[in-house]
Amino acid sequence: MSKAVFYHAGCPVCVEAEQAVVGALDAKRFEVEVVHLGSAPSRIGEAQAKGVKSVPALVLDDVALHINFGAALSDL
Amino acid sequence: MSKAVFYHAGCPVCVEAEQAVVGALDAKRFEVEVVHLGSAPSRIGEAQAKGVKSVPALVLDDVALHINFGAALSDL
Repeated sequence: MSKAVFYHAGCPVCVEAEQAVVGALDAKRFEVEVVHLGSAPSRIGEAQAKGVKSVPALVLDDVALHINFGAALSDL
Repeated sequence: MSKAVFYHAGCPVCVEAEQAVVGALDAKRFEVEVVHLGSAPSRIGEAQAKGVKSVPALVLDDVALHINFGAALSDL
């Protein structure tokens, strides 16, 4: 089981991306965790360490994929 | 079967995104088409009509998801 983490901040762009992407992943292969960085600011450092620069972003197998643009991590 | 179209231009950012995302989609639910807009410039208009502004981008159920940034469509 691979791990996928979707980081967001509750913005409209984030919600649209989450609805489109998270549900499209193969649930048999990916365990998906959704992290709201506004509610869990203590995980911003973790996201940055994975290469996330803005939200929404999906980290899939250590690859940070910025999906559209909602907000910069530095603005959270 | 839903349709997913991954638009790219062969750039390194495009290749990385394709490898991470296209293979992660649920193949039972999505028929994925990969379109190289450098090789098929006649499809740039189609991508624009779907809201794609840069590559790599994935169009999932009519939602245009720009994944990281390789090149603007206007530069192709």
